[in-house]
Amino acid sequence: MRRMSLEDATALAEAVLKGQGFSEDQTRVLTQAVIAGQRDECHSHGLYRLLNCASTLAAGKVVADATPKVDDQAPGIVRVDAGGGFSQLAFEAGLPVLATKAREQGIAALAINHCVHFSALWVEIEAITDLGLVGLACNPSHAWVAPAGGSRPLLGTNPLAFGWPRPDGKPPFIFDFATSAVARGDIELHRRAGKSLPEGWGIDRTGQPSQDPAAVLDGAMLTFGGHKGSALATMIELIAGPLIGDLTSAESLAHDNGAGASPYHGELILAMDPARFLGEHSAQHMAKAETLFSSIIDQGARLPSQRRYEARERTRKEGIAIPEALYQELVQLM
Amino acid sequence: MRRMSLEDATALAEAVLKGQGFSEDQTRVLTQAVIAGQRDECHSHGLYRLLNCASTLAAGKVVADATPKVDDQAPGIVRVDAGGGFSQLAFEAGLPVLATKAREQGIAALAINHCVHFSALWVEIEAITDLGLVGLACNPSHAWVAPAGGSRPLLGTNPLAFGWPRPDGKPPFIFDFATSAVARGDIELHRRAGKSLPEGWGIDRTGQPSQDPAAVLDGAMLTFGGHKGSALATMIELIAGPLIGDLTSAESLAHDNGAGASPYHGELILAMDPARFLGEHSAQHMAKAETLFSSIIDQGARLPSQRRYEARERTRKEGIAIPEALYQELVQLM
Repeated sequence: MRRMSLEDATALAEAVLKGQGFSEDQTRVLTQAVIAGQRDECHSHGLYRLLNCASTLAAGKVVADATPKVDDQAPGIVRVDAGGGFSQLAFEAGLPVLATKAREQGIAALAINHCVHFSALWVEIEAITDLGLVGLACNPSHAWVAPAGGSRPLLGTNPLAFGWPRPDGKPPFIFDFATSAVARGDIELHRRAGKSLPEGWGIDRTGQPSQDPAAVLDGAMLTFGGHKGSALATMIELIAGPLIGDLTSAESLAHDNGAGASPYHGELILAMDPARFLGEHSAQHMAKAETLFSSIIDQGARLPSQRRYEARERTRKEGIAIPEALYQELVQLM
Repeated sequence: MRRMSLEDATALAEAVLKGQGFSEDQTRVLTQAVIAGQRDECHSHGLYRLLNCASTLAAGKVVADATPKVDDQAPGIVRVDAGGGFSQLAFEAGLPVLATKAREQGIAALAINHCVHFSALWVEIEAITDLGLVGLACNPSHAWVAPAGGSRPLLGTNPLAFGWPRPDGKPPFIFDFATSAVARGDIELHRRAGKSLPEGWGIDRTGQPSQDPAAVLDGAMLTFGGHKGSALATMIELIAGPLIGDLTSAESLAHDNGAGASPYHGELILAMDPARFLGEHSAQHMAKAETLFSSIIDQGARLPSQRRYEARERTRKEGIAIPEALYQELVQLM
């Protein structure tokens, strides 16, 4: 493993992205996202993700210098056309408008269109909770997942993320999960390791349950939680697809046309302002949320994201570590 | 079984509710809700529910003549104080304001406060899709469910419902599920039948997995989908509890104070207007949702609510049927 400070990791990410031809603004926000992932030890969304940036760009599936266009569409809707770039810069452009609308209206929606999937949603959700707002975000992906009772891939791994701001500098309550039983990468890791899958992760081409990772990659993944998870994944297809005038996961995979690039999709982000909902009673009711969190922790359960926050404390002091081989690959891309 | 027409069932429900002392307006909307449940053969939310209305009223836990108060709180928020009545009349009062706001703003929230839980959320969601809007609704309940990794009841069975309007008179895409593994009534039914529970439904008082229904009723239920379902249930506690200034499931159970009445809570309902999101391109993008639904059905999977819609067709022609014993109980309440 190669250890480095967060500052050096930041410089490395910037050099790779610039070296690949990403514009200054794109480089800045993509670096923030991979460093956030690396800092929280979400390795698949850390520096490792830069390899995916480079391959998606090489496949001609992302615009390296895309400039987002903001459209103040309605009192409760801001729309940002990402112009075929990764979603981060579009999110950054839309966030101030979303926050203003949420504070004025109580609730507002940010619809990002024509963006290439890049990062975990919790990074965006945390930017919303940092403003004292409640956030919810979701997006389709590629059609890799069968609906409950079905036999063929149709839905994406369709992540759903939610965040709730907390007082007194406490890290926000945030969850961010795929509505598939696991991430597609987990199945790929089992294949490489020659390990069979646990039950319930996928089916083969004929629609039969399978524990063979290659057969599942060739067949379909399953959702978490049976028909309930499948219903949620379908909801995400609808509200972050047709509702915002963007692609479903099936359309994203068709757009990819075998290139193996990241999904191309829209993203729906909602923000609600507790102060607008609660007025002068805000602190009193937000304190009841703290009672709920304490009651979870006091019985030995964990809040989601706790592991990330612990990693964040650790890497702040000790820096980060990546495999030497990954470091060498990244240096080649500079 | 006693068969009757929907008209006779309606008259029966009205007579029971009036006989119990519910006001004319409360009687009208509660009748609509139980008839909708009976018509769709959701028996637990059909005429059977009238027994629960009566017992909740007898326990002093619902206001029989509550008049909802509508507060146009913000451009994107309408709040309705149900005044301690069942939620239906408050929803009816808030719906036109919610719809107007959703059409103007693009997205809007209806917060119902101080209501007694009564019915499945799909009835309300279908009223929203009937207006051509996308709807999402959720509420806490009583603290019967342990968080993932925990050992004690804290969360409610916290239902989540979603609806998407469809063109050409097709019934809407609607799902409505508890975030608990099953409904509490299912565990009660196992107890009465002397049957053990499937794995994963609950834990005993000591936090250990249990398949004994009595031990689980005395311990805690579990969420569906492990930590993901637990995260969703927690989100519902937050956005339909503290965010709208109302009770968590733990507070609802404390309020009940052993009476065994229905949960007392708030309810958060969101509406989004596809026409406001999509403008002149609305029909084109809504057609993509139809492609998604066809792709689900074509592979042998079912859309949620399909069974209800089939029952609705059947009872429209054949009327409904309830056990004679239930009929006699209801007649006693007239």
